[in-house]
Amino acid sequence: MGGGEFSFHYRPEASEPTPPLFVNGEVRDTLPVSDRGLAYGDGLFETITVRGGEPEFWSRHMARLREGCARLRLGEPDFGELNRETELLINGQRTTQNVDQGIVKIIITRGSGGRGYRAPQEPTPTRITAFHPWPEIPDSPALDGVKARRCDLRLGQQPALAGIKHLNRLENVLARAEWDDPDIAEGLLCDQAGNVIEGTMSNFFVEREGTLLTPDLSRCGVAGIIRSVVMEEARSQGIALEEINICYEDATTADALFLTNSVIGIWPIRELGGKEFAISPTTRTLMDRLETRRRGERSP
Amino acid sequence: MGGGEFSFHYRPEASEPTPPLFVNGEVRDTLPVSDRGLAYGDGLFETITVRGGEPEFWSRHMARLREGCARLRLGEPDFGELNRETELLINGQRTTQNVDQGIVKIIITRGSGGRGYRAPQEPTPTRITAFHPWPEIPDSPALDGVKARRCDLRLGQQPALAGIKHLNRLENVLARAEWDDPDIAEGLLCDQAGNVIEGTMSNFFVEREGTLLTPDLSRCGVAGIIRSVVMEEARSQGIALEEINICYEDATTADALFLTNSVIGIWPIRELGGKEFAISPTTRTLMDRLETRRRGERSP
Repeated sequence: MGGGEFSFHYRPEASEPTPPLFVNGEVRDTLPVSDRGLAYGDGLFETITVRGGEPEFWSRHMARLREGCARLRLGEPDFGELNRETELLINGQRTTQNVDQGIVKIIITRGSGGRGYRAPQEPTPTRITAFHPWPEIPDSPALDGVKARRCDLRLGQQPALAGIKHLNRLENVLARAEWDDPDIAEGLLCDQAGNVIEGTMSNFFVEREGTLLTPDLSRCGVAGIIRSVVMEEARSQGIALEEINICYEDATTADALFLTNSVIGIWPIRELGGKEFAISPTTRTLMDRLETRRRGERSP
Repeated sequence: MGGGEFSFHYRPEASEPTPPLFVNGEVRDTLPVSDRGLAYGDGLFETITVRGGEPEFWSRHMARLREGCARLRLGEPDFGELNRETELLINGQRTTQNVDQGIVKIIITRGSGGRGYRAPQEPTPTRITAFHPWPEIPDSPALDGVKARRCDLRLGQQPALAGIKHLNRLENVLARAEWDDPDIAEGLLCDQAGNVIEGTMSNFFVEREGTLLTPDLSRCGVAGIIRSVVMEEARSQGIALEEINICYEDATTADALFLTNSVIGIWPIRELGGKEFAISPTTRTLMDRLETRRRGERSP
């Protein structure tokens, strides 16, 4: 697994200003218009939950970032600097704002340069680390489940970009714009063949006759960190698990459904396509296991 | 057609500094890290050729930009400001640098705000206009034709984004990274079904038995400005024209092939997949017609 452990040792004085974000290690909140992250979405990001003043699943986020950088030929990220900047951001919030919960967002782009789409031979990537306040999420979605819908937009298939968390996210933006109803928590995205791939901001699991199913992400979709933890926990609990194609109709006739992401953890789906779903014992077990893992895998 | 005419009346004093670019009308070269253009590629761009101190096909670029903004629900672009800023940039170059040829790049993003992928209800778009120097392009590609290759990467199909010039361009970046050989001028991109859609930076035309064919762009690809002009010119010259699926094998057995974009105009393809192609009389006719139109459709 990439990126190594997140090491935590820096404690700033309370008088130090809180750095809202770093761009290549400098405290500033702008980047050059020439950056390829803007021009082409030529980069990657990670959204990391901070609880108890510590980032959750740091090593896993860094491993995905490493894989994304390799797939886009961005070179190895500077994990030492990412670690240091994240630590500074969190401790700044802790010390000056008395805040120990939030979200650290990391963006890596190919920086400026190159000629049109052609990347520079020796790119100088842009590294952005930012602390965002914890969003106000009520307890009810996790306790009672959420209502979900199917989006009209269908994901394009692009194996070269599948799985990684790249900056080309117009599909997600357009899909999220399909509904305004605040009672609908998430929209499910199908591929062109009608297989459910993911939610606009989450991964998707189905329970059918005791087996847990989650979509194959080899052609599109983002391989979420919580998805990978839930898959591990299912295996460790002896729950049968398959990564396969799941057509929408099969999803709506399943025994239970849930969503995962780094901020929400697990949200059971209570309603989809006019059908009601109960929160299954398996889902509850995985929610408990995930909560334990979240506590355990904060950086030591 | 959108955007109206490009009106040209401002002449700055020679002592005025050359504005390299404008962001929302201010002379600066950075934008906030929070901009959704960076976070999600949530925006559009245009690359406009300037020759003789005037932008070519301004109304057409503005029409495509308007359509892209409508498709992404970005509201109507401020064509007055785009016109004014482009004029300032060009005249600045003319007056201070004695340069009357170059490229104006326009970027429109959804600006900052929203919650994750969810766009703000009332977005405040970011408008960027920048002048880039004219790239050094030898005459030989237009005179003698170019060598092209087929890219391994295949375009994903996304009708919701097809045709418009949006900022999600990782496919183009990855495709352009497939070759280094300076003798190869362009790579052709096929869709998942094996139909040639476009080049990494250009549109594609095929001539077969007197008929001109260009790929259907309803599922992927960018509907180029020069492509639309060439199609008009073909019709006006009585050349049969079809927008259809063109599989790669059909392309390599055609009578003639050429590429188009705003900077290169028309480049005949001399070699593709080990096959040689002549520059056909039809291609030469269209090259002549395009040159006339480029002169004629500079802003009045």
